Amino acid sequence: MTSNNLVTKLRDKKAKIGVIGLGYVGLPLLMEYANAGFDVLGFDIDQTKIDNLHNHKSYINHFSDEAVTAAMSDKADATADFTRVSECQALIICVPTPLTKFREPDLTYIKSTLSLIEPYFCEGQVVSLESTTWPGTTEEVVVPCITEAGVEIGKDIFVVYSPEREDPGNVNFKTNTIPKIVGGVTPACLEVGLALYEGCVGKVVQVSSTKVAEMIKLLENIHRAVNIGLVNEMKTVADRMGIDIFEVVDGAATKPFGFTAYYPGPGVGGHCIPIDPFYLTWKAREFGVHTRFIELSGEINQGMPAYVVNKATDVLNFRNKPLKGSKVMVLGAAYKKNVDDMRGSPAVEIIEILLSKGALVSYNDPHVPSIPEMRGHKLELESTEITKEVLIEHDVVIVVTNHSSYDFEFIKRHANLIVDTRGVYRDLDHNVVRG
Amino acid sequence: MTSNNLVTKLRDKKAKIGVIGLGYVGLPLLMEYANAGFDVLGFDIDQTKIDNLHNHKSYINHFSDEAVTAAMSDKADATADFTRVSECQALIICVPTPLTKFREPDLTYIKSTLSLIEPYFCEGQVVSLESTTWPGTTEEVVVPCITEAGVEIGKDIFVVYSPEREDPGNVNFKTNTIPKIVGGVTPACLEVGLALYEGCVGKVVQVSSTKVAEMIKLLENIHRAVNIGLVNEMKTVADRMGIDIFEVVDGAATKPFGFTAYYPGPGVGGHCIPIDPFYLTWKAREFGVHTRFIELSGEINQGMPAYVVNKATDVLNFRNKPLKGSKVMVLGAAYKKNVDDMRGSPAVEIIEILLSKGALVSYNDPHVPSIPEMRGHKLELESTEITKEVLIEHDVVIVVTNHSSYDFEFIKRHANLIVDTRGVYRDLDHNVVRG
Repeated sequence: MTSNNLVTKLRDKKAKIGVIGLGYVGLPLLMEYANAGFDVLGFDIDQTKIDNLHNHKSYINHFSDEAVTAAMSDKADATADFTRVSECQALIICVPTPLTKFREPDLTYIKSTLSLIEPYFCEGQVVSLESTTWPGTTEEVVVPCITEAGVEIGKDIFVVYSPEREDPGNVNFKTNTIPKIVGGVTPACLEVGLALYEGCVGKVVQVSSTKVAEMIKLLENIHRAVNIGLVNEMKTVADRMGIDIFEVVDGAATKPFGFTAYYPGPGVGGHCIPIDPFYLTWKAREFGVHTRFIELSGEINQGMPAYVVNKATDVLNFRNKPLKGSKVMVLGAAYKKNVDDMRGSPAVEIIEILLSKGALVSYNDPHVPSIPEMRGHKLELESTEITKEVLIEHDVVIVVTNHSSYDFEFIKRHANLIVDTRGVYRDLDHNVVRG
Repeated sequence: MTSNNLVTKLRDKKAKIGVIGLGYVGLPLLMEYANAGFDVLGFDIDQTKIDNLHNHKSYINHFSDEAVTAAMSDKADATADFTRVSECQALIICVPTPLTKFREPDLTYIKSTLSLIEPYFCEGQVVSLESTTWPGTTEEVVVPCITEAGVEIGKDIFVVYSPEREDPGNVNFKTNTIPKIVGGVTPACLEVGLALYEGCVGKVVQVSSTKVAEMIKLLENIHRAVNIGLVNEMKTVADRMGIDIFEVVDGAATKPFGFTAYYPGPGVGGHCIPIDPFYLTWKAREFGVHTRFIELSGEINQGMPAYVVNKATDVLNFRNKPLKGSKVMVLGAAYKKNVDDMRGSPAVEIIEILLSKGALVSYNDPHVPSIPEMRGHKLELESTEITKEVLIEHDVVIVVTNHSSYDFEFIKRHANLIVDTRGVYRDLDHNVVRG
């Protein structure tokens, strides 16, 4: 099949779209393609996800069962059977790219996916990688795996990189309204890649290579990591000078140009900001260059949970109480407001530090009824309901996540002491301090 | 006079406004107050500025003679006679706050201004400091000088801090449309300060103290310095990987949330970005805290001129030419586009490094006919006209400032080699490289 044939099939929505990896990225993409009128087939090694989809149940908080039902029509299916890859004309890989415990890229999921699907590659397929990764991954990892199968890239099979830009909980933008970057291994690959996404996403932006596309995604998240790191450092400086950093950021935000407000917090979490920048750090080493802003923001942001615990220790100290034996309520466990996502949440590290110092820790999160077991963490805690009595019996409440459902006035009225890491209380007083 | 009386006078525009220091900040402020209908009196120790104003001549490129003429009505005057401070009800200090050569705050201009005006303080005056400075300056430097004169702050004299936010060359915002931050030493001071600026500026934002206002201004410029530093570091990394950073930033800028585009360049210049952040660094030392993002951005940004020269050396090398003896044309001398401001311009350092390595250097800048003598620099160069012949006879052209008036297509057609630090050429080819 020539690229022209495949482009025509994609434009006519006659191509079947395979989405591999049905998590935070793959699930919404699958639904978008289904809603756009394509035949879609979702792949995941996790049979429970497949069962959920067959039962029209969402397994991600911010997607409703109704949305899943609407998408999973007779034109949509999901499977754990990877032999069915051969049914698809497009294969979009949406698997996670975490870090190893030595903070190096862990491409296990990409590589195992490629191994799983490689026997079923067919001529006239397009493979798109959406996972965030270091510049060069598509050419150095994906392409060799495909050419090993004896097919020619840009003629038999087309390969593109198109970074996911999902922002769970963002009410202004969703999958099909966020512009999509596409870079191709060859010009024919690019042409096919553009056709692939133009059928589903409002705006598709072509760039000159896959490694430029890979670098774009990293820059976006490096920009965030560094700006958050900067304001977290500024918090520690302002705090020492007796200046409230939230008042400072609010004030600077009145400048109508040249400034973008970032607010400090208890650290960074989620699957992007704490991880993605280090993909560039790792790759840069091969070229003998350093990514010092990334290293510095990593250091500052990773130090925030300890900073918050120190703040709690200090305020308790002034009430003549050691942290050991004090009752501490952690408010919010998810890594950001209004989501149930616990991946990399600073709340976990705050709780672990508190426990290691002998504090008696409870937590509340309306979106996280119990803290699940995670890589390297096992806490066995269940969310405690917030009542007047519960607040009164705790020595200090640490606001870690500013979920919209919290009644912060109620909490302030009954809590003995509050360490506020999110600026939910803009006015500080005798029982509220910044953390 | 009570604060109420002074507030009423200010609201009724019956107060005479003294502006001290008639440079990039003071001159536009003087004109705004005059245009708003106040009696104004400008002060400067530089008699040539005063003479210019009396002759209705602008001495700053981006203000026209007509604007100066319109402002210098019969209600406006300028003088080098500081005894006339006693005529004014408001004294707004707009003097520079540079760094010493050891990169420490140099408050000489603030202190000498206070000494000059102190004998003429009168009850019922408001003193506003607009110079960018470290948090605490107003309370620790300005207030003692005034109380020494035997007057009570907040009763006899009112003291506020309100940072200037001028952005020369910005066509979207000017003095009276940029919101103005005001912090007062006492509540009465704040009340007077608000009245002072509300008569002249569209939006005035009150904050809880002078040190918060001081910190706000620093955060604004730290934010810029760090974001420019980050993208300059990303340029060096991308460059090594064979990726064009301008394509990457353009691509990331298509993300409609969570990313703000900053572009790399030949270093930072002007009187704010290279200087202001170190005011916080210096003050933070007193509190035993570090400002590592500021230090890192300083290091990266200050290293860019040398990086650019290395780039030029490399491209000449591949044409079998050493830098020594090569003819190098530096395009643009001002620190940013469309201004004539040479303060801290990276062009100066690039030229100095080139000369120190034996290059034969010319420059062109339509806004800078000759490079003036500056603190620590004396170059004695005059702008060379850009002609086909001039371009041909130079071995390499370095684009340092992207003035709108440049015909970059013409330059590309005739130049042998171009090192482009500003991304004016989005497509690179055999004779254009990124610098």
